Amino acid sequence: MTETASRPTLEAVAARAGVSRATVSRVVNGGDGVREPLVERVRQAVEELGYVPNQAARSLVTKRHDAVAVVIAEPETRVFADPFFALQLRGISKELTAHDNQLVLLLTEGRDDHARVARYLAGGHVDGALVFSLHLDDPLPGLIQGAGVPTVFGGRPGWSDGTRDVVYVDSDNRGGAREAVRLLAGLGRTRIAHITGPLDQTSAADRLDGYREVMGVNEPRLVVESDFTPGDAERAMRELLDRCPDLDAVFAANDLAASGALRVLRERGRRVPEDVAVVGFDDMLPVAEQSDPPLTTVRQDIEEMGRIMARLLLRRLDRSVADEAPGGVVLPTTLVRRASA
Amino acid sequence: MTETASRPTLEAVAARAGVSRATVSRVVNGGDGVREPLVERVRQAVEELGYVPNQAARSLVTKRHDAVAVVIAEPETRVFADPFFALQLRGISKELTAHDNQLVLLLTEGRDDHARVARYLAGGHVDGALVFSLHLDDPLPGLIQGAGVPTVFGGRPGWSDGTRDVVYVDSDNRGGAREAVRLLAGLGRTRIAHITGPLDQTSAADRLDGYREVMGVNEPRLVVESDFTPGDAERAMRELLDRCPDLDAVFAANDLAASGALRVLRERGRRVPEDVAVVGFDDMLPVAEQSDPPLTTVRQDIEEMGRIMARLLLRRLDRSVADEAPGGVVLPTTLVRRASA
Repeated sequence: MTETASRPTLEAVAARAGVSRATVSRVVNGGDGVREPLVERVRQAVEELGYVPNQAARSLVTKRHDAVAVVIAEPETRVFADPFFALQLRGISKELTAHDNQLVLLLTEGRDDHARVARYLAGGHVDGALVFSLHLDDPLPGLIQGAGVPTVFGGRPGWSDGTRDVVYVDSDNRGGAREAVRLLAGLGRTRIAHITGPLDQTSAADRLDGYREVMGVNEPRLVVESDFTPGDAERAMRELLDRCPDLDAVFAANDLAASGALRVLRERGRRVPEDVAVVGFDDMLPVAEQSDPPLTTVRQDIEEMGRIMARLLLRRLDRSVADEAPGGVVLPTTLVRRASA
Repeated sequence: MTETASRPTLEAVAARAGVSRATVSRVVNGGDGVREPLVERVRQAVEELGYVPNQAARSLVTKRHDAVAVVIAEPETRVFADPFFALQLRGISKELTAHDNQLVLLLTEGRDDHARVARYLAGGHVDGALVFSLHLDDPLPGLIQGAGVPTVFGGRPGWSDGTRDVVYVDSDNRGGAREAVRLLAGLGRTRIAHITGPLDQTSAADRLDGYREVMGVNEPRLVVESDFTPGDAERAMRELLDRCPDLDAVFAANDLAASGALRVLRERGRRVPEDVAVVGFDDMLPVAEQSDPPLTTVRQDIEEMGRIMARLLLRRLDRSVADEAPGGVVLPTTLVRRASA
């Protein structure tokens, strides 16, 4: 265990470099107005002593921690099991690193821990927060508002009516779903089932809306709610086949659910796409490409969503006033055709 | 974007509850000495206003942030691609949550970002750090020492000579490797190859030492260094087969590497275990169980390692003095036999 006593101080650096504390502070905090030979002496002393600037003291000057929290409103087991989150984090990590901001991922075991996350956000440890995978009845948005840190949401928050002070990045979930169902209808399929995501998330609700818009009639027996995981999608697919053995197409709300549906269809002796055509959502690689057969799906650029979330937040943090109108950035989706439909 | 102005203050809570600021502060910080009816009034006001205690102010009283950083010395892409890290984080997350401490995962794009991680650690944002997957020439340990936060390492740090002030949790890598190679030798195999992990990590170096101890003679053509990933292990397996076409066993330094080796052996027409017996390390599920054939491997309890790391750190933080001797906790390994050897 490292000892606190061993930490070199600003004073030690100043003494070693033969300059004032103020000069060391200016150099360390990237300030101007110090002559180059002095800068060099301070840098050398910093290196020799292994001095690490005290961020707390530094942020008194800069008012910035150069750190951004990421909160995913799912248990950590889900965060590591679903490649969606890894992709979104990849985009966020690249963008934050390019601006020398630290990505601070706050993991939880579940919703009971969200009050603790809000306390951390309120504690002056980060400059802002990126929050995604919100569920409708989650207290997190209110808690985050209480914490008072600038926030950008991934996915349209369910409570947002367009007038509130909320910034978010989303995909065109409704439009993408419409395109998927139109493709299936265009192939002459008439009994098109839908395995939804959790309907307390706007991404899942919007995809269901898109499906319904194209289907016209509301046929509840063709729709089963699921939770974006392959295991639960298998359960949903079995339920659909029991209810409606002659269904000829399935639109699954994400690729992981589609992969579960494919497994059950194979197990029940249905040929894909001959008997049942299948379309997913995400174009998550390698899931979509390596499924059997490879998956026709609605592509959304998940990594880019993460990147844009981070960019919007950093832009806001770089300005002293909130001079940007709140609102959403909605990214387009594209249909990717493979063998399953 | 949420507005800072909307954040309710301690004063507002005091006014709403009709008590003094000091009383609110005592209740919010879990202090005693406040009568129950007053506690109830404060709690109600906190709830009505959506008040989130200011962690910075609170930690002035408690000297604690109730937050622990986790630093994995790998790029975030690796963190999300290798289930080893998810398992270790699971153990850490459970233990920290059970003690109402926030898990703060500091992600990086690579080694260039480690100075920034150290600045965050030094900034007074966490009470301690759990650090794993260290590489020998990584500046991180020195930077962390400079940051002055209590730290527990996962895996024996390479610079540790047993006398320095370092606490770590490790598996018996050398003993586990010996057991794996002894099993193969006991099956009558004489040309036992080894695909190592990155030898700038003690876990990989210790497994190589265990292999060499049982093999007795040092046969460099039977050893190829790899990096714990399946892709690079395929390259290593091809190299071994080219060098030594009559090899009859492979000990891979982790299960992911073993899965890559199995693919190449199949591609080259070698039957496992008849022609070549294979043993891995980790017992990572589902990799080990679902490989073809299922993998004989050395089991280490990765989740438990994470849990113990967190427990050691929290115990240290709960005491005002460092009354525990530094040193390592080394967990035993067990051989798990399946079809591959």
